[in-house]
Amino acid sequence: MIKSKLNDISKPVKTELETFQKIFKSSLKSSNNLVDLVTNYIIKQKGKKVRPVLVLLSAKVCGDINERSYRGATLVELLHTATLVHDDVVDSADKRRGFPSINAIWKNKIAVLMGDYLLAKGLMISVEGEDFDFLKKITNTVKRMSEGELLQIQKTRKLDIDEETYFKIISDKTASLIETCCEIGSMSSSDNPEHHQALKDFGNYLGLAFQIKDDILDYEGTAKLFGKPIGGDIKEKKITLPLIYALNKVTPVEANQVRKLVKNNSKKDSVKEVIEFVKKNNGIEYSQKVAFDLGEKAKNSLAIFQDSQAKQSLEALVDFVLERNN
Amino acid sequence: MIKSKLNDISKPVKTELETFQKIFKSSLKSSNNLVDLVTNYIIKQKGKKVRPVLVLLSAKVCGDINERSYRGATLVELLHTATLVHDDVVDSADKRRGFPSINAIWKNKIAVLMGDYLLAKGLMISVEGEDFDFLKKITNTVKRMSEGELLQIQKTRKLDIDEETYFKIISDKTASLIETCCEIGSMSSSDNPEHHQALKDFGNYLGLAFQIKDDILDYEGTAKLFGKPIGGDIKEKKITLPLIYALNKVTPVEANQVRKLVKNNSKKDSVKEVIEFVKKNNGIEYSQKVAFDLGEKAKNSLAIFQDSQAKQSLEALVDFVLERNN
Repeated sequence: MIKSKLNDISKPVKTELETFQKIFKSSLKSSNNLVDLVTNYIIKQKGKKVRPVLVLLSAKVCGDINERSYRGATLVELLHTATLVHDDVVDSADKRRGFPSINAIWKNKIAVLMGDYLLAKGLMISVEGEDFDFLKKITNTVKRMSEGELLQIQKTRKLDIDEETYFKIISDKTASLIETCCEIGSMSSSDNPEHHQALKDFGNYLGLAFQIKDDILDYEGTAKLFGKPIGGDIKEKKITLPLIYALNKVTPVEANQVRKLVKNNSKKDSVKEVIEFVKKNNGIEYSQKVAFDLGEKAKNSLAIFQDSQAKQSLEALVDFVLERNN
Repeated sequence: MIKSKLNDISKPVKTELETFQKIFKSSLKSSNNLVDLVTNYIIKQKGKKVRPVLVLLSAKVCGDINERSYRGATLVELLHTATLVHDDVVDSADKRRGFPSINAIWKNKIAVLMGDYLLAKGLMISVEGEDFDFLKKITNTVKRMSEGELLQIQKTRKLDIDEETYFKIISDKTASLIETCCEIGSMSSSDNPEHHQALKDFGNYLGLAFQIKDDILDYEGTAKLFGKPIGGDIKEKKITLPLIYALNKVTPVEANQVRKLVKNNSKKDSVKEVIEFVKKNNGIEYSQKVAFDLGEKAKNSLAIFQDSQAKQSLEALVDFVLERNN
């Protein structure tokens, strides 16, 4: 269902997406067996390719898709893949028991090295193509993504986070790359700075809405076959928008009681209690309203462009992000 | 003793090194408390700053140290620091026992993120300075460093490594960055391609000699107050030049017996037996000869330059690398 919706959205760049896939695949080829083993695994997993689709649609809204658009799409997908591989370091650590085996250590080491390798590969494609405007954007994005994650870790430790800090975190860790995808796409096909700014804004609002929706889904009760389990953020002591809003609506004494529940969430039912507290205090409705407003802002950013299939797809992507159930 | 030798070597760029320190320190400033905490820790550890010294000496041999030289020195030091921080992921995993605590997971996660952050910061300095020639070199270096480490992991798994593969590994994982330091230094102060090639060659030979000496020290019996313990490579099943040479000198049957000792090195005395086998078969003398020859080649690469204090320092650095005891 998700897959078919996304197929509809990417229809205006269907052929170009196939060309991208070929370029991406060949960019991953290596003479090192171990590198090839890991990259083949990555290619097989495929993923939804949302970021390359964003680059290509943004390019098409502003002009014609060209060599630079493909290089931009390859760059962002390699960077995205690198961050996923680096994330594996922590996930695998969580699952391991007892002494870490040589293989487990290797797994972490390989994940770190492969992430570095993929990032370097992406940057090399931009360097060789002399896309220095892309490099300026993407290095700043890598910096912002790591800063955002580090700020979240820091705030999670203290269970102390307000709405402003929340927005700083999700803007850096999530929206920055979405924004860069759209901006790079427009830079590849247009010289008009108004186009670049419009797509940058679109990407920023879309990215924020996406992350807020993600955080809402952590509180919502639909069965999730795939994706992360409900209450996962609370278990990790991550305080997101629905909870921030709810905590602000009650007395400091009550807020501290809820913070204690988050802190000692290994106790039976404490995660459930936090979810009920958020629901009772309209944390979900509020967050949905915020996400919806950001979605509207995203769509409005595209007002300067004439109607086209690519523009309709970007608008449909906003609705898709807001309406998804997992 | 090491410190004072290195102080002598860096004398021709003493003032410039102080300027670099200030630039490097200010490049690490961040508005994020957690980032600041980690970077302050990094600044305090200091280190020998061999790579920035190489950039500055190489620049001085070819011309005048300038803004670009400082940006190059900052770039390589940030990259080097990033790789050290990423290495921590694996080291800490080794020391941990039982369930990884949230803090232990965080430590890994923070190390990965901080490494990414430092790498991005370094690249941003080059992007903003429009040092696109540096970016071309450094992204390729990041790729080579991760490829070299991955090849080593792959070969370590199979205990199957010949001299050619050994040189491929140490050329990528170690010599590539040393080479890039020297090349970037010369590129910052000279437009003469012969200068660039000479310093590139110097760095390559120096880097190879450095790694071979490092691998020899794993077999040599001097007490090491600091640095890695003797036999550490054998314990990690890393087969380096002294052992490769010794294995080639005996019958396949005997070689397989030694490989078995490396494979099951938890048995008492097996590490000691491997060390004795290498010594008996002249693995250390041979490797010393190879390292010495590479050192000579490094010095010869500088033949095109007139005599100067900076040139003498680069030559002295070769001797220092070959003569060090830890």
